[in-house]
Amino acid sequence: MTQPFTFTLLATDGQARRGEITMPRGTVRTPAFMPVGTAGTVKAMYLDQVRDLGADIILGNTYHLMLRPGAERMARLGGLHEFARWPYPILTDSGGFQVMSLSSLRKVREAGVTFRSHIDGAVHEMSPERSIEIQGLLDSDIQMQLDECVALPASRDEIERAMQLSLRWAERCRVAFGEQPGKAMFGIVQGGDDARLRVESAQALRALDLKGYAVGGLAVGEPQAVMLEMLEATCPELPVEKPRYLMGVGTPDDILKSVARGIDMFDCVMPTRAGRHGLAYTRHGKINLKNARHAEDPRPLDEESDCPAARDYSRAYLHHLVKSGEALGGMLLTWNNLAYYQSLMADIRAAIEAGRFAERAGEITETWARGDLPTV
Amino acid sequence: MTQPFTFTLLATDGQARRGEITMPRGTVRTPAFMPVGTAGTVKAMYLDQVRDLGADIILGNTYHLMLRPGAERMARLGGLHEFARWPYPILTDSGGFQVMSLSSLRKVREAGVTFRSHIDGAVHEMSPERSIEIQGLLDSDIQMQLDECVALPASRDEIERAMQLSLRWAERCRVAFGEQPGKAMFGIVQGGDDARLRVESAQALRALDLKGYAVGGLAVGEPQAVMLEMLEATCPELPVEKPRYLMGVGTPDDILKSVARGIDMFDCVMPTRAGRHGLAYTRHGKINLKNARHAEDPRPLDEESDCPAARDYSRAYLHHLVKSGEALGGMLLTWNNLAYYQSLMADIRAAIEAGRFAERAGEITETWARGDLPTV
Repeated sequence: MTQPFTFTLLATDGQARRGEITMPRGTVRTPAFMPVGTAGTVKAMYLDQVRDLGADIILGNTYHLMLRPGAERMARLGGLHEFARWPYPILTDSGGFQVMSLSSLRKVREAGVTFRSHIDGAVHEMSPERSIEIQGLLDSDIQMQLDECVALPASRDEIERAMQLSLRWAERCRVAFGEQPGKAMFGIVQGGDDARLRVESAQALRALDLKGYAVGGLAVGEPQAVMLEMLEATCPELPVEKPRYLMGVGTPDDILKSVARGIDMFDCVMPTRAGRHGLAYTRHGKINLKNARHAEDPRPLDEESDCPAARDYSRAYLHHLVKSGEALGGMLLTWNNLAYYQSLMADIRAAIEAGRFAERAGEITETWARGDLPTV
Repeated sequence: MTQPFTFTLLATDGQARRGEITMPRGTVRTPAFMPVGTAGTVKAMYLDQVRDLGADIILGNTYHLMLRPGAERMARLGGLHEFARWPYPILTDSGGFQVMSLSSLRKVREAGVTFRSHIDGAVHEMSPERSIEIQGLLDSDIQMQLDECVALPASRDEIERAMQLSLRWAERCRVAFGEQPGKAMFGIVQGGDDARLRVESAQALRALDLKGYAVGGLAVGEPQAVMLEMLEATCPELPVEKPRYLMGVGTPDDILKSVARGIDMFDCVMPTRAGRHGLAYTRHGKINLKNARHAEDPRPLDEESDCPAARDYSRAYLHHLVKSGEALGGMLLTWNNLAYYQSLMADIRAAIEAGRFAERAGEITETWARGDLPTV
């Protein structure tokens, strides 16, 4: 018998939740950060390293993978886990967000969305049913409904139209997904920056009795305060016994504040993308290795880190690699950043278990605020 | 007392030699292939991986490092070994070759060479003495004389002029280097594609009683047969008890044929550069992963390899990474290629020890000639 998909709430501390999602390919400790593996690779990392840092799950992008190598080809090759050599849980998005942000000539209709590939200009159609079919071909463990995510600011009418369409698509995705033991399909709360629309979306999705709920359409240009306000309106409407995933978020500070409001899962390109642009996330805050102050600094990014990239290489060397455009610069900084994000999540989980999340969040924030080490 | 720089000839088989170079930072088993660490990094590799593949020594490029991060800065940071975290032997070139190939407005005079940096256009002067000084600031274990390497084809007069200048620079480098226990300065045989000039150069350098000898100015556009002819003329003129290094060479086939003619050391960007361009070196020959034939091939590059990059990832995945321009593609193929080069060198060393080098070289060449696995 297949191990069922379950979520267990182990502890709460205020609104913050410490849980575990169990599925056949493994257990995800929440709050969890999911490194983004866009095209079947977490950029500039070996997946063994990603695992060793403590990642229980990674995210794959349906849009990228359906265009290249293609969903049917991926299925013939045994699915995404086998292809990328990641035998642990994978969550895939629906492809909808990247259709909106990357493709051209996209057209949203009731039936679905038509778009041109940003790679070769070929026209593709994506219905709610096709999105679920593709995610199934990838053999994704947690699949997302197709939704329409509007960029903010937008009019209330536009936000409401997209939210209602997303609800109808959620229903169609639920039917298309059917019963898949050990796997889950999550609905996505939309509603832009309008708390009443968010509540309406959450309540309607809740009625569908899905295995998990995401909050989408945030961190799309609005101030952090607006995002937090939307979480405060949304999370109380979501069932306690299901996992909650805030899509595409965020900075370490976004994560702390969203956990405080009841979020369990995160994904974001920030640690990987920043790593390729010379930026390091550390206990001391964000450090720009391009800065000349690091050119003769023999100190590592963080001598107390367990991650070799943070602990063993001098800032001078990292500065040199970044300035020289060497691949190893991106490799080391991505490694450092994902290590920092995973250590932050472990720290958060331990604090919730110990019933001192708010206190620990305050300490972490204070250490960021003190900033980087003084110049040598 | 510092461990002296020594070369021990352990076995010979025809002209092929099996030896060991010992110096304070370690022992180099010859014939040896030195991965190229141009700017203080073997591109797209962690140096721990390079070591684990069996590399006893890597090469650093004086030209790149003098421009960035700069020789004096590198010395303040503890030298190249400390900077790059490679505590084992390092050979540096003199900078001369890259001055000729990369910089603009270069001017060769008796005193040395003046050139503009390809990075920022700044004017630099490099004399034989300054080249040795820079290599000392990098704390290089094996330093190379400054020489002038002419591109072939060239007139005999031009080749002879550059060869004679290189000899006078060798003498000046020898004086500048002085006595450095545990380290070595190698002379470089020049003479283009003219066997008599090669002999003259080798004999004059031999009279300087240097700790090792390189053959330079080959693999610069001439046919392989010409290169081999030059080795046949040169190697007998070099002292048996000193290591011989063929600079910038080459393909696996170049290496086999040069070992057969008495060469002990090699360096080449081929395995690293090819890896970043989708090309894999294997027992079956060179494989172009961009080729569509690999798109659905679940087989690894070489299931018998000890290297995870060669053994564990499907060709379909490698094809996808290369086509998608993903960093991991270059990381995995560089890893595979350096693993293949090091396994080839280990194979060569074992065959010389066993007195069956010619036979083994024949087998290796035959396996290349049979080509890649049939398409699935």
